[in-house]
Amino acid sequence: MSAAPGRLIGLGTGPGDPELLTLKAARYLAEADVIANFAKRGNAGNARKIVAGHMRPEVIELPLYYPVTTEIDKDHGDYVSAISDFYEESAKAVEDHLLAGRTVVVLSEGDPLFYGSYMHLHVRLSHRFSTEVVPGVTAMSGCWSATGVPIVQGDDILSVLPGTLAEDILAHRLSDTDAAVIMKVGRNLPKIRRALAQVGKLERAIYVERGTMENMAITPLAAKPDDIAPYFSIVLVPGWAAKPGESVDTSSQMAEVVA
Amino acid sequence: MSAAPGRLIGLGTGPGDPELLTLKAARYLAEADVIANFAKRGNAGNARKIVAGHMRPEVIELPLYYPVTTEIDKDHGDYVSAISDFYEESAKAVEDHLLAGRTVVVLSEGDPLFYGSYMHLHVRLSHRFSTEVVPGVTAMSGCWSATGVPIVQGDDILSVLPGTLAEDILAHRLSDTDAAVIMKVGRNLPKIRRALAQVGKLERAIYVERGTMENMAITPLAAKPDDIAPYFSIVLVPGWAAKPGESVDTSSQMAEVVA
Repeated sequence: MSAAPGRLIGLGTGPGDPELLTLKAARYLAEADVIANFAKRGNAGNARKIVAGHMRPEVIELPLYYPVTTEIDKDHGDYVSAISDFYEESAKAVEDHLLAGRTVVVLSEGDPLFYGSYMHLHVRLSHRFSTEVVPGVTAMSGCWSATGVPIVQGDDILSVLPGTLAEDILAHRLSDTDAAVIMKVGRNLPKIRRALAQVGKLERAIYVERGTMENMAITPLAAKPDDIAPYFSIVLVPGWAAKPGESVDTSSQMAEVVA
Repeated sequence: MSAAPGRLIGLGTGPGDPELLTLKAARYLAEADVIANFAKRGNAGNARKIVAGHMRPEVIELPLYYPVTTEIDKDHGDYVSAISDFYEESAKAVEDHLLAGRTVVVLSEGDPLFYGSYMHLHVRLSHRFSTEVVPGVTAMSGCWSATGVPIVQGDDILSVLPGTLAEDILAHRLSDTDAAVIMKVGRNLPKIRRALAQVGKLERAIYVERGTMENMAITPLAAKPDDIAPYFSIVLVPGWAAKPGESVDTSSQMAEVVA
């Protein structure tokens, strides 16, 4: 499958705590010739911070800066065109290093193929270069582990829902599942709150900000006094209340955790 | 929160490849006084195999053997009673070590609070002992990373569905999502196949057996000639076909991966 000597590695950095890197990720970081990461200009990004302790001093860094397109609607042709051009250029920059025989590690917060930007390089390059994807602990796993609330068990269905969905779709999806994780919260929080309230699940919802990082915040969503949330915060709706043979009160358990 | 000197750690071992342990998991394994794991009698289990290289020779092992109840329907009172007794006894065995001041690590394949048996100890003990859950790479992340097929991006909805669901429920859920992961495949495979075919998604489905382990097998489900599958195999239905500005053919990509 390899047409050239370079090797492409999509590497999951886990949710934030540097100790949640995998042993394989640590090894590949130490072997990398080039470390690429998607970032906003002026902000090295969380993934870069997570791996800082594992980077060789002489490694080549390749930051890939997203174009400033937040003012354009994501369905607008100009946005689609700008972001598509950006991924093409990013793939070309990585390809140049691969053609020169270098091992290129592309950082991805959480897990690379789970809502990660890495996949845009993967689909453009993995056919032509030796490629490996190193899975990582997802942000959602980091968040529910930090809260200590079991998310799903037995025959539970879990729905992973982007907070960008329309309110009625969110409400429908939330009503029709055992457990839910809502990603990409940010400015969608008021809408998420309304959708949860509409289907009677607001009291079960847990808000987690910067999960597993030093400045993590966990609170029952109903008790959060404002609607200010970073884009990468998460809302958890645990599926497990009580089951036959069990006597579990998730809400009191959560109260312990967040106390 | 701690009433006694012992410490309880629910530890995710990741999907199978021992290098997919986290750095934190490796550290806690080296610090453990007791390593507990759920297992079937006569089979040490995958989690035990994954961590074998990180266990101190003098560590106390506490295997927790599931009662033999596979012949009883899981909704039957005898099953519910047997499994509930088993979790109570297991919690008591762990508690004895905690009361003696020992650090007890409970192994959990994948991630502890994601369909893991560990949660049955967690809900019984975490109120009374200092407790930490170490998240792990889930089996599903290990599987989609091994196939190299992006599972979700952008506004995609992911549904995680136990293969134990009834055929009509499975079919409905599969028709009404962007991406799906079907867990607990085993003897449910013929039913899963029919549900996928019914909603026109059989051609997209990928079957993964023993994901990330040495004897992993990946095949398009439609090409799998038999319905023999271990319980812990997984079926992936990727959400990402083609998006505006992209020209991705997942099926041909998958063909490359499995070739």
